[in-house]
Amino acid sequence: MERLSQGGVTAPKGFKAASAAAGIKYQGRTDMAMVMSEAPCVCAGTYTSNVVKAACVLWDKEITESGRPMQAVVVNSGIANACTGEEGFNACRKTAEAVTEALGIPADTVAVASTGVIGMQLPVEKLSAGVKMMAPELSDTIEAGTAASKAIMTTDTINKEIAVTFEAGGRKITLGGMSKGSGMIHPNMCTMLGFLTTDLAIDKALLQEALSSVIKDTFNMITVDGDTSTNDTLLIMANGLAGNEKITGKGEDYDAFYSALEYVCTTLAKTMAGDGEGATKLFECKVVNAKTKDDARILSRAVVGSNLSKAAIYGCDANFGRFLCAMGYSGSGFDQNDVELFFESAAGRLQVFDHGVPLNFDEELAVKIMKEQEVTVFVDMHEGTESATAWGCDLTYDYVKINADYRS
Amino acid sequence: MERLSQGGVTAPKGFKAASAAAGIKYQGRTDMAMVMSEAPCVCAGTYTSNVVKAACVLWDKEITESGRPMQAVVVNSGIANACTGEEGFNACRKTAEAVTEALGIPADTVAVASTGVIGMQLPVEKLSAGVKMMAPELSDTIEAGTAASKAIMTTDTINKEIAVTFEAGGRKITLGGMSKGSGMIHPNMCTMLGFLTTDLAIDKALLQEALSSVIKDTFNMITVDGDTSTNDTLLIMANGLAGNEKITGKGEDYDAFYSALEYVCTTLAKTMAGDGEGATKLFECKVVNAKTKDDARILSRAVVGSNLSKAAIYGCDANFGRFLCAMGYSGSGFDQNDVELFFESAAGRLQVFDHGVPLNFDEELAVKIMKEQEVTVFVDMHEGTESATAWGCDLTYDYVKINADYRS
Repeated sequence: MERLSQGGVTAPKGFKAASAAAGIKYQGRTDMAMVMSEAPCVCAGTYTSNVVKAACVLWDKEITESGRPMQAVVVNSGIANACTGEEGFNACRKTAEAVTEALGIPADTVAVASTGVIGMQLPVEKLSAGVKMMAPELSDTIEAGTAASKAIMTTDTINKEIAVTFEAGGRKITLGGMSKGSGMIHPNMCTMLGFLTTDLAIDKALLQEALSSVIKDTFNMITVDGDTSTNDTLLIMANGLAGNEKITGKGEDYDAFYSALEYVCTTLAKTMAGDGEGATKLFECKVVNAKTKDDARILSRAVVGSNLSKAAIYGCDANFGRFLCAMGYSGSGFDQNDVELFFESAAGRLQVFDHGVPLNFDEELAVKIMKEQEVTVFVDMHEGTESATAWGCDLTYDYVKINADYRS
Repeated sequence: MERLSQGGVTAPKGFKAASAAAGIKYQGRTDMAMVMSEAPCVCAGTYTSNVVKAACVLWDKEITESGRPMQAVVVNSGIANACTGEEGFNACRKTAEAVTEALGIPADTVAVASTGVIGMQLPVEKLSAGVKMMAPELSDTIEAGTAASKAIMTTDTINKEIAVTFEAGGRKITLGGMSKGSGMIHPNMCTMLGFLTTDLAIDKALLQEALSSVIKDTFNMITVDGDTSTNDTLLIMANGLAGNEKITGKGEDYDAFYSALEYVCTTLAKTMAGDGEGATKLFECKVVNAKTKDDARILSRAVVGSNLSKAAIYGCDANFGRFLCAMGYSGSGFDQNDVELFFESAAGRLQVFDHGVPLNFDEELAVKIMKEQEVTVFVDMHEGTESATAWGCDLTYDYVKINADYRS
């Protein structure tokens, strides 16, 4: 597998993208994106576990579960189309119908996704106009993909995209992706919004299985603020244009795809965690030797999800008791007398807690380690053999600032 | 039932308190308190659900579960004595033994409680010296109780105490209490630290039953930051000196006590929520007509516990979608099409969401309502008959500031 130096959703064969400034809520910036495949795609999706699901989540879920192909996705930022009742669902249909009108693609193969303020209706006319603007601009250039990844940003400070190539069935396959999200990110769901494209030929059930499995250790392991959005959506479209023999069972080809998918999702997820609202650092927790995989995931997520842990990471305060405390209320049972805890970063590694006993550690070294851009809390449970890694960010003044006045 | 204009733990007959500046961690302020009863007390306790329990929690749990009486409690602020292994447990024993030496009270009837930094050993000599200082100063005055409530503060900005009287068995009974806590406060536990005293005569099992029941709708319904402490402890001591016929079964007397206990715990809990670290407001969520009592509790706690909700409350932003979103990921199932949502405060009441549909509400009025010191989000689920109220606070810059550098 090779990571390309540039590119995202337009990297695989047959995918085009466009973006537009439709004036949905923001002024002076793009706020709509479209990704389209020349050929109908096998598709899969994972969605928020929030019982309050946005209209677009319901719309897309119906497509990915129906067995119909997917050929395009239209995304807007600014308004989330959540808590909007029947009118919100109609807005999804009208947006998809605008794609039919502009490109002849059947509306029931057009996914839609929204991100932004909850509880506000979408201006449907503006969305339809946006689709009409984007249709003639669709392009398979790297730049078009990058522009799309910028149009879907809300409080993100950087756009997030990636493309890789790998081999399957003797052909070079490309997998690309873009995502957005820097708040309302939390376990039990995929990220805010993620769109993956590939020219691989693969069976639909296997595509869904791979996606559902990969998110457990990638998108579901990041947390910024513990709030699980109403809109979280991760879609993958596979158009088969690479010409490989269709993957219909597990084996070498499936494994190659799975590894590439895992790499793409991990990279996008970590980028989102590090770009958490107001964040200055990527905060990672590795839990090793836990009793079960679930325990490892629960424990590591509790650590990076704790406000007190996040504030300590921001302040470079080696207040390790907060990490143990978070593990303690996570819901996973363990004995603190089994636990070892370390701080790690590019600046070094330092043990601070040893089997129930706090160590008299070098505070200066601790601060030095924590001042790095990426800080890891490494926890050895000594209770089993399972491991997991979770990613989050520090809690800063700016997080509060961003969220105290998000709507205006 | 009558609330006294002043007083706390020393209000009931036979209770004395003292405090001292033992120099455990803070300088220039008191950091130890002792509450003592002239007569051995029937006792009950509720403790943190965190699996990482502080040494003092283990010590007190043993006493309240043993059937032995409790006659004194010694509290320190500054260091939590959590994650401290065997040495930490020995510190509890030595503190209790210092009380035996100073006052002749058996060590196994002396509770201890600590609050402060986790993962640091207590300076046992300083605690023993503190006990020796406090013993001759024990006093039943209002001032002594108030001083004790101040000594147990950490990041609290105000001390918390209350006393009420009620009638049982033809006698006037007094119930007093003090508590501390403004961070690391979260459901599934009592508050950080709470100590209740009463001169009521009551059966031990009934006392525990009342306490365990009352906390479910009081201390367990407040949340500041979602972090469940390792130390949370709520103790009640009943010395029987009011001379009422001992309450041994449910009935009018038990009910009178229960109501008084509920009032005291609600008042202390709300004061703690409103004094959350960095908080400028008390943020209340009332959920009515939920399917079950558990649903009502889960939903209301999710709303006041959400960082995004708390930031919106701070910014006076009527971003009601965040409240619905928090309800959606709470774990309680419901249909958003059943839900009505209102903002309430001293400045008015405003409906913003009606059975799945966002209302086009008066933004100016919304801001006016949210600018009050106490703001309520009122949610009618229309799915049953059960209700619950949760309390929290807004999320502010100061929360981050306080917690980014708590140890230094």
